[in-house]
Amino acid sequence: MKMKTLEDVFQDELFDVYDAEQRLIKALPEMAKQATDPKLAEALRSHLRETEGQLQRLEQVFKILGVKAQKEKCEAMKGLIEEAEQLMKHTAEGAVRDAAMISAAQKVEHYEIASYGTLVALATTLGHTEAADILHETLKEEKNADSMLSMLAEDHVNDNAMRQAA
Amino acid sequence: MKMKTLEDVFQDELFDVYDAEQRLIKALPEMAKQATDPKLAEALRSHLRETEGQLQRLEQVFKILGVKAQKEKCEAMKGLIEEAEQLMKHTAEGAVRDAAMISAAQKVEHYEIASYGTLVALATTLGHTEAADILHETLKEEKNADSMLSMLAEDHVNDNAMRQAA
Repeated sequence: MKMKTLEDVFQDELFDVYDAEQRLIKALPEMAKQATDPKLAEALRSHLRETEGQLQRLEQVFKILGVKAQKEKCEAMKGLIEEAEQLMKHTAEGAVRDAAMISAAQKVEHYEIASYGTLVALATTLGHTEAADILHETLKEEKNADSMLSMLAEDHVNDNAMRQAA
Repeated sequence: MKMKTLEDVFQDELFDVYDAEQRLIKALPEMAKQATDPKLAEALRSHLRETEGQLQRLEQVFKILGVKAQKEKCEAMKGLIEEAEQLMKHTAEGAVRDAAMISAAQKVEHYEIASYGTLVALATTLGHTEAADILHETLKEEKNADSMLSMLAEDHVNDNAMRQAA
């Protein structure tokens, strides 16, 4: 099945991120549970709620476009979550694991920043103005989530991790 | 094997991105070959040369730290490159494929932006000042590469793709 038009590419990207968000919704609760730092745990729980809203926004976009969400496996998010799980498993509990988890979570955020950045650009070119606005809301949230994680790392998590005894 | 210290996490992240860069060096020539737009092809070729330099910078960092690069499989970059290959295979040649390829390449760039962002933060916390400066050089290059791709998409590639007949 070839994608022949920019509209096809746009929809394919939507289906990809729709799968990515669903995978993330499954992965975030365990990450929040493994976090020791209360602010990190709260940031991850709050991002879970945000992600559920982002999934609904995608469904809203499908409705506007009049398309049915197609099942598509997001290989990249699968790999990103696998990496996060491996990191949690292989790091000592506490601030060291928290620091590693922030790193993994920021990779996930950046995947989504790239996806929604592309989606907003494509929706705009294609004249899907309402969809572009909705997708832009999510893009802003993803960028904020990434900044919040940087802030936590730089504020105290990395320092705490450095002090954690081997 | 547990990572017990922040230094362990830092080195693990270095080994991960070292594998990621090597995978990217193998994938970029085919992407450049598949690009129709001459500016996109040139941007991908130029990023290949840049990536080779980034690999050397990592080797420089290993030398400074006195560690030997360990073989580690970067699952996320594996997934990202798989996605890029699938996209190229499943899109019609020309501007539509170019637009899809920009999307895939920006996901790769964002993975690296997240990785080097973490690496700079960890190197700074750990007092590896020289390594932090070297890694920061790469971080700047990755951000520039991402901006360049956005610029190409918004300047003409997406418009050309929209005009491409189905």
